[in-house]
Amino acid sequence: MTTHPQEAASSARHETTVAGIMTAIGRDARDAAPILELASTDQKNRALRAAAAALRKRSREILAANERDMEGAASSGAGHALLDRLKLDPNRIEAMARALEDIAELPDPIGTVLAEWTRPNGLRIQRRRVPLGVIGIIYESRPNVTADAGALCLKSGNAVILRGGSESARSSELIHQCLVEGLLAAGLPATAIQRVPTTDRAAVGFMLADMAQYIDVIVPRGGKSLIERVQKDARVPVIGHLEGVCHVFVERAAKLEMARNIVLNAKMRRTGVCGAAETLLVDRGCADTHLAPLIEALLAAGCEVRGDDRALKADPRVKPATEQDWYTEYLDAIIAVRVVDGVDAAIEHIRRYGSQHTDSIVTEDAAAAERFLTRVDSAIVLHNASTQFADGGEFGMGGEIGISTDKFHARGPVGVDQLTSYKYIVRGSGQLRG
Amino acid sequence: MTTHPQEAASSARHETTVAGIMTAIGRDARDAAPILELASTDQKNRALRAAAAALRKRSREILAANERDMEGAASSGAGHALLDRLKLDPNRIEAMARALEDIAELPDPIGTVLAEWTRPNGLRIQRRRVPLGVIGIIYESRPNVTADAGALCLKSGNAVILRGGSESARSSELIHQCLVEGLLAAGLPATAIQRVPTTDRAAVGFMLADMAQYIDVIVPRGGKSLIERVQKDARVPVIGHLEGVCHVFVERAAKLEMARNIVLNAKMRRTGVCGAAETLLVDRGCADTHLAPLIEALLAAGCEVRGDDRALKADPRVKPATEQDWYTEYLDAIIAVRVVDGVDAAIEHIRRYGSQHTDSIVTEDAAAAERFLTRVDSAIVLHNASTQFADGGEFGMGGEIGISTDKFHARGPVGVDQLTSYKYIVRGSGQLRG
Repeated sequence: MTTHPQEAASSARHETTVAGIMTAIGRDARDAAPILELASTDQKNRALRAAAAALRKRSREILAANERDMEGAASSGAGHALLDRLKLDPNRIEAMARALEDIAELPDPIGTVLAEWTRPNGLRIQRRRVPLGVIGIIYESRPNVTADAGALCLKSGNAVILRGGSESARSSELIHQCLVEGLLAAGLPATAIQRVPTTDRAAVGFMLADMAQYIDVIVPRGGKSLIERVQKDARVPVIGHLEGVCHVFVERAAKLEMARNIVLNAKMRRTGVCGAAETLLVDRGCADTHLAPLIEALLAAGCEVRGDDRALKADPRVKPATEQDWYTEYLDAIIAVRVVDGVDAAIEHIRRYGSQHTDSIVTEDAAAAERFLTRVDSAIVLHNASTQFADGGEFGMGGEIGISTDKFHARGPVGVDQLTSYKYIVRGSGQLRG
Repeated sequence: MTTHPQEAASSARHETTVAGIMTAIGRDARDAAPILELASTDQKNRALRAAAAALRKRSREILAANERDMEGAASSGAGHALLDRLKLDPNRIEAMARALEDIAELPDPIGTVLAEWTRPNGLRIQRRRVPLGVIGIIYESRPNVTADAGALCLKSGNAVILRGGSESARSSELIHQCLVEGLLAAGLPATAIQRVPTTDRAAVGFMLADMAQYIDVIVPRGGKSLIERVQKDARVPVIGHLEGVCHVFVERAAKLEMARNIVLNAKMRRTGVCGAAETLLVDRGCADTHLAPLIEALLAAGCEVRGDDRALKADPRVKPATEQDWYTEYLDAIIAVRVVDGVDAAIEHIRRYGSQHTDSIVTEDAAAAERFLTRVDSAIVLHNASTQFADGGEFGMGGEIGISTDKFHARGPVGVDQLTSYKYIVRGSGQLRG
C-alpha cells in the first residue's frame, strides 16, 4: 500500500513501541482538538460528505479487504455472530455512507447557548456548548463503528482515537482512510480522526490507564468482558455501556393483543441488540388469560422459553428458569418468564435483576403506568411500546455511539449532544466582588 | 454521648472493621436512594428548615465541640490556614443555618422535564431529571461542608455519604446530628445523610476503590494531595475539583483604572479561594503605561510580585519568577506577572500553564474579548470582571459543592442541578419497531 496522507501526517509512524505509538497519537489528538473546536459547521459537514463519497468510490477495495478479514476470522474459529457483525456488503457500505450524510444533516451542537441570564450586578452569564476534547473509542469487530463513531465525534467538534478489534483491522483501515480523505478535503487536520494502527492488545491498556492527559473520555463499545476491563482499568472518565437486561411487564390491565405484539417485537425483532427484551414479567392478575397465549406466541416464533413454576404449568414446552436466568442478557432467541404480584413486584424484580437499560410496561391502567415509569430506575422506560425503540435514531437524535447505562454525564442514547460539555462565558463592565 | 437517632438507624453501628462499617453505610445509602428520589419538594424543604433550627438550637454545643477540635488541631501542629478553616463562631453557625434555608428556597430540580418531543410514529418522549443516586463527599477540615454538602445532596434527591477530615470530627458529628434531626422531622430516613464515623484513613481508600456498587459519584473537596489521591485510586466516577491557576489578562485596549481594580479584587479580595488570580498577564502593547501602576497597586496592597524580565525592570521590588511560578496556585498574597505579545500569546500561556478553571480578560476591544472568551478552554471565562466571581452563589445557582474543572458531567459551579442525571420516559400506544 502506498503512503497515505494520514500516515504522512501522523507522528506515530516513527514510533515502534506501543507506548511510543500511543503517546504520539495522544499528542496529535490533543493538538487537533482546539482546531476541531473552532471548525465551522460547514467545514465539518463538508468533511463528512467527502468521506461518504470516498466510501462509495472505494467500496470495491473495502469489500476486498473485508473478505480478507472474514477469512482471517473464520480460520481462527470465529463464531457466526462475530462473522455477521464483521461482514460488509455493498448495502452495508452504502448504509455507512448514508449515515455520514445523515450526521452532516444534524444540527451542530457546538456554540449553542444552553442558558443565558443577567445577574443583579449586571454580569451577563452564558452557558455555551463546547466539545469534550479528545474521545477514545474502543470497539470490537463491527467495521461500521469506525465510520459512525468517527463521524459523531467530528460533528461534535471532538478529536477521536479509534481502537477497533483486530478481526476488522483491514476493513477499518480503509474506512478510516476515507474519513481522513474527507477531513483533508475540508481543510481539517488528518489527526482529527486517528486509528490505532497496532493490533497489540497492550494498546487498549495504555489508552485506559496511561493517556489521561490526552483523552477526555473513553467510550467502550463491546461485550461484557470489554466493559469489565474498562471499568477495572480506566483512569480516564468512561461513558459506560453495560448490558441490557431489558424487561417487558404485562400488567393486569394490558390488552392481550397489544401485549403479544410488543413482547414478540421486543424479543424477536433482533435478538442481538442491547434493547432486546430478555425477561417477560406477567402480572398474576392476568396470568390466567395472558400467560399461555404469550408463551405460545414466543414458542411459535422460535424462541426458547425458560419460566418459573407458574410458566412451567402454563405450557409443557417451557424449561425451568434458574436464579441466574433473571440476570442474563441472552442476546439470543431465549426469554425468561416470571409471574409477579402486580406493578410493585415488577418494579422490585427489575431493581434487583435489571441493568438500568430499558424496560417497558404494557397496560391500559394509567396509574400503574405512571408508577412504573417513575419508579423503574432505567435510562429508558416505556409504556405500551417495544423495548427495541432503545436507539438514538428512533429517538430522533440522529446517530448514536451507544446506549449509556451510566447516570453520570450521559444516560441513554449517546448522540452528538452527549459528546459535548459546556463553558460559562461572563461579560462584565468592571464588576468586582464585594 | 447518648445514643442518637441516626446511630440507632444505622446498621453500621454493629460493625468494627472499616470494610464492615463502610459496606453497611453503602447498603443503607443504596436503600435510602429510591426514597429520596420520590421525596416531595415540601418534605425535603421541611427537613432543611428543621435542620437549620437544630443548628441554631444546638449552637453552644457545637461551639464547645469545635473548641475541642481546635485544641486537638493546634496541639498536633496545624497551621494558621487550617485552623482558620476549622474554626466556628456564632456567626459561622448562623451562616450555616441560613445556607440550609437558602437551599430550601431553591427550585427543586427533580422531576423537571428537560425536553419533550413526539416522534412521527406517535411515541411521546420526555427527558426528565432524576437524582444521581448516592453521592460520596470526601472533604477536609471545614466543618460547614458537612451542612452544605448534605443539604445540596438532599435537595437534589440524592443519598449522601460524608467523609470529613479527622480535625473537624467533633464539630462535624454534631452538625451531622442536626441534619439527621431535620430528616426525621420530615419523615425521611436518617440514612439519607450518613457520616463516616471512623477517622481511619482506610475509609477514604475503601470509598474510592471498593464502593462502586453503592456510590454513583464521588465529589472530593480539598487540596492537591486529596485530589491526586482520588484521581489515582477512584474506581467510581468523580466530579473533580482541580486547582485554580486563574489568570487576569490586561489586553492593550484595557482602561488602566478598570484593570487595576479587577486585578486587585481578583488577587486580594480573598487569596485562599480557588477563583483567586495567581498570574497577571500584561499585553506588551500597554506595558509601558499599565505594567508599573499595576505592580505598584499590588505591592501597596501587600502582595508579593514575582515577574519576568520586563516586570523586574518595571519595579525594583519585583522578585524573579521561575518556570514553576507560572504553574503555581499560591492561595496566598503572591502573584506572578508576565508580559505577553497580545491576546494569542495570552491564550497560549493559559493553555500551557492554566488549570482550565477561571480566566479573565480586561479590554475595551470587543474582538479581542471574543477571541479570548471563545479560545480559552476554561470552565469560566470572563470579560471585564474579577475572577473571584467564580462561585455558584455569584452565578445565581444557590449553593454549590465546588467548581468542577472536569468537562465530564458537570463543569464550573456544581449546584443542585449538577447533582442530577435524567431518564427517558416514552409513552406509546402499542408501537412496534419495524
